[in-house]
Amino acid sequence: MSFHSMWAELLPVGRSSASGGYRRYAWTGADADCRAWFRQQAEARGLAYEVDRNGNQWAWLGDPAAGNAVVTGSHLDSVPDGGAFDGPLGVVSAFAALDELRGRGARLTRPLGIVNFGDEEGARFGLACVGSRLTAGALTVEQAHRLTDGDGVTLPQAMEAAGYDPDGIGPDPERLARIGAFVELHVEQGRALDLSGDRVGIASAIWPHGRWRFDFRGEANHAGTTRLADRRDPMPSYAETVLAARREAELAGAVATFGKIAVEPNGVNAIPSLVRGWLDSRAADQASLDTVVTAIEKAAREYAAAHGVDLTVERESFTPVVEFDHALRDELALILSGDTELRVPVLGTGAGHDAGILSGRVPTAMLFVRNPTGVSHSPAEHATEDDCVAGVSALADVLEGLART
Amino acid sequence: MSFHSMWAELLPVGRSSASGGYRRYAWTGADADCRAWFRQQAEARGLAYEVDRNGNQWAWLGDPAAGNAVVTGSHLDSVPDGGAFDGPLGVVSAFAALDELRGRGARLTRPLGIVNFGDEEGARFGLACVGSRLTAGALTVEQAHRLTDGDGVTLPQAMEAAGYDPDGIGPDPERLARIGAFVELHVEQGRALDLSGDRVGIASAIWPHGRWRFDFRGEANHAGTTRLADRRDPMPSYAETVLAARREAELAGAVATFGKIAVEPNGVNAIPSLVRGWLDSRAADQASLDTVVTAIEKAAREYAAAHGVDLTVERESFTPVVEFDHALRDELALILSGDTELRVPVLGTGAGHDAGILSGRVPTAMLFVRNPTGVSHSPAEHATEDDCVAGVSALADVLEGLART
Repeated sequence: MSFHSMWAELLPVGRSSASGGYRRYAWTGADADCRAWFRQQAEARGLAYEVDRNGNQWAWLGDPAAGNAVVTGSHLDSVPDGGAFDGPLGVVSAFAALDELRGRGARLTRPLGIVNFGDEEGARFGLACVGSRLTAGALTVEQAHRLTDGDGVTLPQAMEAAGYDPDGIGPDPERLARIGAFVELHVEQGRALDLSGDRVGIASAIWPHGRWRFDFRGEANHAGTTRLADRRDPMPSYAETVLAARREAELAGAVATFGKIAVEPNGVNAIPSLVRGWLDSRAADQASLDTVVTAIEKAAREYAAAHGVDLTVERESFTPVVEFDHALRDELALILSGDTELRVPVLGTGAGHDAGILSGRVPTAMLFVRNPTGVSHSPAEHATEDDCVAGVSALADVLEGLART
Repeated sequence: MSFHSMWAELLPVGRSSASGGYRRYAWTGADADCRAWFRQQAEARGLAYEVDRNGNQWAWLGDPAAGNAVVTGSHLDSVPDGGAFDGPLGVVSAFAALDELRGRGARLTRPLGIVNFGDEEGARFGLACVGSRLTAGALTVEQAHRLTDGDGVTLPQAMEAAGYDPDGIGPDPERLARIGAFVELHVEQGRALDLSGDRVGIASAIWPHGRWRFDFRGEANHAGTTRLADRRDPMPSYAETVLAARREAELAGAVATFGKIAVEPNGVNAIPSLVRGWLDSRAADQASLDTVVTAIEKAAREYAAAHGVDLTVERESFTPVVEFDHALRDELALILSGDTELRVPVLGTGAGHDAGILSGRVPTAMLFVRNPTGVSHSPAEHATEDDCVAGVSALADVLEGLART
């Protein structure tokens, strides 16, 4: 099955007709459809299919027990109203690259694996990369049990409802020990390749990033009858904090975003009792990130205190800077440059990935495919089919170059 | 049945154990329970019970067809997580005042009505006072048909699901023509009576007020990889507007509140495509209100335009200043001062009420009962039982004074 046909098959799954974006959240019906598609692709190619203890899907050519496996893949879930490429491009390209290798008659001496990591985006339970974190031991079973979605459903309950046994979740060092290299292909989520005029690039590092929950608590009251002087309205404190985030990120050359909010009681004529805003911030290095977040929190605390609003700030997740394996990165650059005479750009990224989680346990690399607008996490996310096919070809070269050595 | 017993009976209906506040939204199960309670109170007292074409409930002592009726009452629905008093105090006090009049052996020469107006708070469909507006012709049938709740259910669908015939909704001039005076008792939603040391006051006017929907549209994108310069993030524009609202209201001695917000896609790592905020603003006079809202909109437009964000502002509802009937107000003051030798304070209010809607058609007045904290639209809303009983007594005096003349 061609890249084009696989892509067309996945396109309608979990797509909202209202927004045109994807709503493929972990352990939902749309997610189950994506997983069924993965299994079908694996079985149609005669690959050995398995689901690991954390719900990640694997397809194997050769025996993984032989060790030193070359693994590629990504994820199939999405952010709310996300695009078609973030995640699925890496999985579809993995199957397409395997087909290309078979078409070339490539002789592979190492086992080759394709993986779909579960719940990469964290759209449902608020924590990204749950599948790879659990496997790598970067999320404890106790922490995973406490994950709860907006309807109060816990992660174990959601897994069980989707037909998976949640009792077995946890670290999986034996599985990771069999992997000699993991290469994730991903659509670029910025414009570096567009600006440099390249179809494909190699990742250098993932910026450190984290999520912080700001709870501004005031006092619910009538919006028409409560004098301004008598108010403890948390909304202006939230607003000051949003502007502080923009200001501090600009100063530090970083990014800071308040993209999610929950207000109680959220009535037009009610002063809120609670405004809960989530800050996502990332920077090229740890010191810059610390500076940005500390300054935002300081501004928030000062304004809130001056207006009788209580503030609690909780760090919900944090991932330190990830420098991808230098030897593997250089190997990829050599494979790609040797074959194509193309200069291959090496870029940093502000996005987290399963590859970032695994990099602490396994030599890991990433390939990026050009995104002409840089837009991601949006229905407008895009890559041309020519660039996608170039990405498949580059991935096939990399897999062949690694797996025949 | 005493005030105390009626109050205790209503207390658990529609109360959220999580927030301690009330969620009695129009045409829901909690609303149906409130309505069943009203009917039971009417029938237990041998009053003639009826539901009008717009779903408002009425209980009659004497024949309303005789005309020149004296009517009292309020509403039983609530804002999200509202208090127990806003609305129900006026309905419970109405029945309790009737009991007191019967206990006194009062001889009434005019029909006496008790009313529960439907959907006063507008918590479900976003428009306040739907029941009284329809009856007074202040909301057309076409407008009412377009009202939709957060789940896409229209008002007619909601009425039908609750067992009411929505085909008959519309103006009800015959019913209004039978009413000679309407008096609504309500918990005060500010601290004027607390500051003056009075249990009961009389309303002078309702400030003009309105609701405006601000839609800030930008472009959804990845929060980690999109440079600040490439963003069209609507959240900072919303934040600037919240602060402008606070600033402009302060300048004008008015109030302005952003208490409700909806964000799309509302993901932690997604720059929003849409931030929708609702402004509620009120001022002592029309010119002040115009000044405040115009200034807020101007600030919002300037900031949004500078950041590539599209803004549309729609006025969703508006109620001009309501001066209550001066003759009726003076009559109430005379009745209450004559009986008790108390000075009766006369106060303006920033809150909308069914009494305000009816005042264009029927001589209308309001009584306020002291609220020791001024807090309203919150689980902390309160009035002491002594003050509530004083309110019942004052209402009984007023009804007797009016209905025996």
